[in-house]
Amino acid sequence: MSAPFSISADFIADHNARLDGATTEDYHALERTLTRRGIDAEALVRKVTEFGVAIPTWGVGTGGTRFARFPGPGEPRNVFEKIDDCAVIHQLARATPAVSPHLPWDKVDDNAALREKAAAHGLAFDAVNSNTFQDQPGQALSYKFGSLSHTDKAVRDQAVAHNIESIEIGRKLGSKALTVWIADGSNFAGQSSLTKVLDRYIDAMREIVAALPADWRVFLEHKFFEPAFYSTVIPDWGTSFAAAQELGPKAYCLVDLGHHAPNVNIEQIVARLVRFKKLAGFHFNDSRYGDDDLDTGSVDPFRLFLVFNELIDAERRKAEGFAPAYMIDQSHNVTDPIESLMQSAIELQRAYAQALIVDRAALEAAQETNDALGAHLELKRAFTTDVSPLLAAARLRTGGAIAPIAAYRASGYRAQRAKERPAVAGTSAGIV
Amino acid sequence: MSAPFSISADFIADHNARLDGATTEDYHALERTLTRRGIDAEALVRKVTEFGVAIPTWGVGTGGTRFARFPGPGEPRNVFEKIDDCAVIHQLARATPAVSPHLPWDKVDDNAALREKAAAHGLAFDAVNSNTFQDQPGQALSYKFGSLSHTDKAVRDQAVAHNIESIEIGRKLGSKALTVWIADGSNFAGQSSLTKVLDRYIDAMREIVAALPADWRVFLEHKFFEPAFYSTVIPDWGTSFAAAQELGPKAYCLVDLGHHAPNVNIEQIVARLVRFKKLAGFHFNDSRYGDDDLDTGSVDPFRLFLVFNELIDAERRKAEGFAPAYMIDQSHNVTDPIESLMQSAIELQRAYAQALIVDRAALEAAQETNDALGAHLELKRAFTTDVSPLLAAARLRTGGAIAPIAAYRASGYRAQRAKERPAVAGTSAGIV
Amino acid sequence: MSAPFSISADFIADHNARLDGATTEDYHALERTLTRRGIDAEALVRKVTEFGVAIPTWGVGTGGTRFARFPGPGEPRNVFEKIDDCAVIHQLARATPAVSPHLPWDKVDDNAALREKAAAHGLAFDAVNSNTFQDQPGQALSYKFGSLSHTDKAVRDQAVAHNIESIEIGRKLGSKALTVWIADGSNFAGQSSLTKVLDRYIDAMREIVAALPADWRVFLEHKFFEPAFYSTVIPDWGTSFAAAQELGPKAYCLVDLGHHAPNVNIEQIVARLVRFKKLAGFHFNDSRYGDDDLDTGSVDPFRLFLVFNELIDAERRKAEGFAPAYMIDQSHNVTDPIESLMQSAIELQRAYAQALIVDRAALEAAQETNDALGAHLELKRAFTTDVSPLLAAARLRTGGAIAPIAAYRASGYRAQRAKERPAVAGTSAGIV
Amino acid sequence: MSAPFSISADFIADHNARLDGATTEDYHALERTLTRRGIDAEALVRKVTEFGVAIPTWGVGTGGTRFARFPGPGEPRNVFEKIDDCAVIHQLARATPAVSPHLPWDKVDDNAALREKAAAHGLAFDAVNSNTFQDQPGQALSYKFGSLSHTDKAVRDQAVAHNIESIEIGRKLGSKALTVWIADGSNFAGQSSLTKVLDRYIDAMREIVAALPADWRVFLEHKFFEPAFYSTVIPDWGTSFAAAQELGPKAYCLVDLGHHAPNVNIEQIVARLVRFKKLAGFHFNDSRYGDDDLDTGSVDPFRLFLVFNELIDAERRKAEGFAPAYMIDQSHNVTDPIESLMQSAIELQRAYAQALIVDRAALEAAQETNDALGAHLELKRAFTTDVSPLLAAARLRTGGAIAPIAAYRASGYRAQRAKERPAVAGTSAGIV
Repeated sequence: MSAPFSISADFIADHNARLDGATTEDYHALERTLTRRGIDAEALVRKVTEFGVAIPTWGVGTGGTRFARFPGPGEPRNVFEKIDDCAVIHQLARATPAVSPHLPWDKVDDNAALREKAAAHGLAFDAVNSNTFQDQPGQALSYKFGSLSHTDKAVRDQAVAHNIESIEIGRKLGSKALTVWIADGSNFAGQSSLTKVLDRYIDAMREIVAALPADWRVFLEHKFFEPAFYSTVIPDWGTSFAAAQELGPKAYCLVDLGHHAPNVNIEQIVARLVRFKKLAGFHFNDSRYGDDDLDTGSVDPFRLFLVFNELIDAERRKAEGFAPAYMIDQSHNVTDPIESLMQSAIELQRAYAQALIVDRAALEAAQETNDALGAHLELKRAFTTDVSPLLAAARLRTGGAIAPIAAYRASGYRAQRAKERPAVAGTSAGIV
Repeated sequence: MSAPFSISADFIADHNARLDGATTEDYHALERTLTRRGIDAEALVRKVTEFGVAIPTWGVGTGGTRFARFPGPGEPRNVFEKIDDCAVIHQLARATPAVSPHLPWDKVDDNAALREKAAAHGLAFDAVNSNTFQDQPGQALSYKFGSLSHTDKAVRDQAVAHNIESIEIGRKLGSKALTVWIADGSNFAGQSSLTKVLDRYIDAMREIVAALPADWRVFLEHKFFEPAFYSTVIPDWGTSFAAAQELGPKAYCLVDLGHHAPNVNIEQIVARLVRFKKLAGFHFNDSRYGDDDLDTGSVDPFRLFLVFNELIDAERRKAEGFAPAYMIDQSHNVTDPIESLMQSAIELQRAYAQALIVDRAALEAAQETNDALGAHLELKRAFTTDVSPLLAAARLRTGGAIAPIAAYRASGYRAQRAKERPAVAGTSAGIV
Repeated sequence: MSAPFSISADFIADHNARLDGATTEDYHALERTLTRRGIDAEALVRKVTEFGVAIPTWGVGTGGTRFARFPGPGEPRNVFEKIDDCAVIHQLARATPAVSPHLPWDKVDDNAALREKAAAHGLAFDAVNSNTFQDQPGQALSYKFGSLSHTDKAVRDQAVAHNIESIEIGRKLGSKALTVWIADGSNFAGQSSLTKVLDRYIDAMREIVAALPADWRVFLEHKFFEPAFYSTVIPDWGTSFAAAQELGPKAYCLVDLGHHAPNVNIEQIVARLVRFKKLAGFHFNDSRYGDDDLDTGSVDPFRLFLVFNELIDAERRKAEGFAPAYMIDQSHNVTDPIESLMQSAIELQRAYAQALIVDRAALEAAQETNDALGAHLELKRAFTTDVSPLLAAARLRTGGAIAPIAAYRASGYRAQRAKERPAVAGTSAGIV
Repeated sequence: MSAPFSISADFIADHNARLDGATTEDYHALERTLTRRGIDAEALVRKVTEFGVAIPTWGVGTGGTRFARFPGPGEPRNVFEKIDDCAVIHQLARATPAVSPHLPWDKVDDNAALREKAAAHGLAFDAVNSNTFQDQPGQALSYKFGSLSHTDKAVRDQAVAHNIESIEIGRKLGSKALTVWIADGSNFAGQSSLTKVLDRYIDAMREIVAALPADWRVFLEHKFFEPAFYSTVIPDWGTSFAAAQELGPKAYCLVDLGHHAPNVNIEQIVARLVRFKKLAGFHFNDSRYGDDDLDTGSVDPFRLFLVFNELIDAERRKAEGFAPAYMIDQSHNVTDPIESLMQSAIELQRAYAQALIVDRAALEAAQETNDALGAHLELKRAFTTDVSPLLAAARLRTGGAIAPIAAYRASGYRAQRAKERPAVAGTSAGIV
């Protein structure tokens, strides 16, 4: 078997050469504008190059809905091939230096080999994701009526054991955190005791927390609805927070941008979790209706900026215990996932850079004097600034592509992979 | 092969015998109360026995979510077995004399045999449902990017041809209507021209309308979101109505209770469609978040009553063109679908009977004098009346079971079917 | 001046005499049905007679919207007249033995006289409500940009002082709790520091908590939005809970049924607050869109039942610290508030009685075996039971009216009051 | 009395002089970037200078909520003073050449003088707004239970007469359209016949339509909820559209950005109304929860851009009957309304300019080939372009201020007006 296709550094350099002149001109114009506002563009570029977000292994497959899944060509068939795809994303866009594994799908015999392969591409392993929302072939007990909150202790034990095994695998891969999302809930008023399910969840989580290595954290992921449609055991940040408190100092609350009730102010939830020292981090995506899993920043880019505005605020004032983990969590039904993930990482960098150029002294001064419009316009001035040239500069200086999607399309990567990876009927990726 | 298991009339009679005394006592008490309010209980029982709602063939299978499907034992493997299950539902609960087929899944070689089998169980065929939201094995062109509104005329033609074939099959089964729901939409702002997709949809629908037999109607089904999460081609009753107008007098608008934006007043939409002479009928279910497909009346029974209140109002004033079709459209993940469908049919009868006992003269008098609370309490008095004994009486008099779920459980039907129908791996029902 | 009009016990007795026969017949029929289900109807009647909910003083005035207020005839012009209206509500419907004062509107020179007058009508004083959402004539500093969370310490001090004065007045009236709702929030992203406003709120609340008498509690009332439309300082139960924890054992979280995001499962929030020992109690009303302040049980009566189902569950298992306070909080724009409040109290009794007749052993058995439909139908059986005769019996036995609204209308109370209380131009009631 | 304060052209020129260098540098940098993309910056500047949006007379007052109104200093006390404020907004920001009157508040003895005063400031009169949501002093019949849809014909006649008088006044002022928003609806299920209220509304509107001059249009404004909280007569675009059809070719549907159900895709509603030839125009503002009346573009600027994207699309393809009217409709509670209105006009120009630079050929090509991400990125490229220098250039060339808010603050306008206009107790502006 021949070596799998890869994109060469020369190819990227050639591609960049054609765009370099315009990019540089735009960058210098932006630099002049920022200088006038007292902002050091070069320092910003450095900050952006240091920004990183993880990609979950399921992210490089094509997700679906309950109605259908329309797979694309050349989908990765196992975690090693997923690493290949994650590698090209990071190679071109230079913003995704980590991979988040999903168990049991990413279970392999040789975790050391997997870790080594990732490292060879400059990729580390971030938080491990367990799964108790689906039944696996050969699984002893079903999760049809719940997992960590199930009425039957044997089912809860099975789910706990899976999470502990996930920690063990994560330890071998170099992860430092476990993310727990459960699908547990009910479809009928009365189906479950709303109180007992939570008690059972907390008790089961205690066992998982007890199994965490000393330097690990556990991330509780709440979700408003789906797949349960009457009640969900961990439906909101309030329940997540109260549970995390009971579970102690290793337990934190993860924010997925699509897991909230309609109209909720997500940036304020972020501020609250920072204030109460329980922010775990993020699953980034975008949504209008629910857990839409649309591409990050594609529906409401201003909201994404406002989330980063809170993060920069917390960073600046050195909020106690503030160390958020970042992951992209999208479901790609109508795009090539590699393209979507590159673009999403860029949108995150954009929001991050825009939040960095907010004039915080002016903002605070306006807030203190109740100059509502003045304060708002400080945020808006940052948000309307086009930082694209700055992001391109960050990529260029770290060996990435000025125009990652154009470069990717020109490379023929997908077509090559499609030859190497014949379609497997009925393959379904795990989705959180 | 031995004859498939069935529930005997004797079994039902025995079961009823044990409950008859209490049921009769409660019925007579209710009769006295209603008499005092000037209502003829016996006439009500007759109206209830005449009420019928269709069951879709996919309804007797277990639905799932994008996260998992947890099949139950003894699921029907083809449309003939689905008819068996629909038959037992009607046998016990006496409220579902029709079946709504779903194509291509219910395509058979011998439609006459299918029709005959259904008729032998006292079942007719109601509106046919086409499907262009999934790709079928061997299908020439994919619906990944749409069907009736696709940019490619060849895809649209394929979808039109499928609908015309569905009409043809429906004609053989004795149906008189085609229900068209398309999953077409987009996941990104800009992905589609919001205008052109609708133009193409209307053009394609014109061809389908042209193929309708003279005594057929077509039902346009709108849906707020899912599986598309940025825009949906037919997302609301306004678009459905405007399209139905362009499509002419055979086109009507179908209301699915779970296909609306949050907080929308559904009974008012029903009133509007009646007012503008375009109400096709209903897909009944219940929901809190979106297209939850929960059991009818399980989340908001007062809303269901208010919908029926509009229907009775329209019937009483002989609203022009008022002839709604009724179907249950639920996805049963945590119950035996036979039980859920029997109970849902009963909940529909309950809402219907409660709407019938509204004192409409008193209601109108209160409305005319702006006695807001007085008018409201006329509705509430009907809604809080426990009509259960009346519904039991209707079942009893037509050979059904006083307590259909208890009788069903006692019959052992599911366990018998589970023996006759071994589980098929990966079977997935079509879902609208 | 002649004595103000009142409704005599004889008048009520006469009115009841005409309805007694039918009421008794219906009651006995219900008693027989309940007996068959193992339920003691007489014990239920006793429970219902012990149920009580408070009426806020602003509740007997006509509320309005930002667009208009349409006052009704005979509105009370001061707290003494409000007590008169509260008295007639309790006289007829026998479910509202307490009044909740609202300051500064209910401030009087002689609190002892006010307390005595209420006591003469059998009314006690429940939780005191402070107000810092409006500026009062002569107020030194404005709440335009906030109160307890204002950037200016002088404004916060003024708001704290008002709350402490409210406690002092409440003490004189016999109250045991202070309810604090603040309108603080922002209308622009950036207007406020989302973190600092909460810090300031908590600091200010600490001073108020420190001023509470030993046997008092303070109720934090959250609200999703309005009058602030970008962010609200205490927008959700999560923030309320986290703040209550910081404020210590006297601080509890109040649930207003209309203060939640769309689609939120309110009964689950109730269960969570019970589980985490921080449920203060309720402001009852109903809503579809936001803080609609519609009549209790008028939009979603099943939801109200499910809330009571959680309360009975907590009571039965003697949940630690469970002692909820009940108040009706509605804004009556199109009805006579006396009628609406009587009916709302009855709807609360109805939900309470229905929750009491749930067969909890059967419910729990179904839950434990994941019989989702069976568990649900236990709740539905209770909800569809018409307990009206039982509620009428409870009123009858305590001297109230079988049909309170009919009796009230027949009494001519409003017309008499309209003569005694000429309309005051521009009077506006305080609204929470 | 001395002449009222005004801002001189010299003052503006001086203010601009200090900012001119940086503005010009940024403009030229943007010009170079746009040139590379094949876009003529100068042509864009011209288009922007031609863009205009109306200000409603109530917009220059401070709005409030049902909880409180916090007036600002120097509020205009009558329509002549309102014109003064509108004039300074247009003088500085050069984007609001029209005023939309609100009756009966703007009723004057001498309409010719009013028109002349406006003209002297370069202001014309746009669509007239009637009001039947409040009772006016001395009004014969109350709108408490509705206006155009009231059960009482006399009330409907009064509301029709007010609308006809509004047309008459508008005619004198040079308007060409009447906007009709009614607050009619209900707070209780059953309070109104959902059908009859609409019939009465349509009948009443027919009389108003009949009174329109030949060259006038009438705009129907729908609203999801508030001040009615159970049902609203014209709650959605579907009802508005169906009513407009019955009312004939002069009736169009107005879109207010805050009058929709949660999560609704507003740009698609715009596309639908264009498609069905019934788009009247817009009331611009922003909102998260309902009719929040927040500043345009302050909550979701991407949505505003997408609305303009549809408008440019319609303009380019010369959609039949496409002639939208633009008005800002905000309620300013925490800002100086003059500042907010200037900024809102600029945000509208921003969205307009960004929509103009979308590469429509590339967009269409991507759409046709189902390149979902490619199509989306065409929109995003336009949206992330910082067109601020271009908007500043447009203001500069037409005599406005480069930085309108800074110039306004420096001018001392509000402080001067506060001296000229002493506060009037209890003044309340009419709000739509």
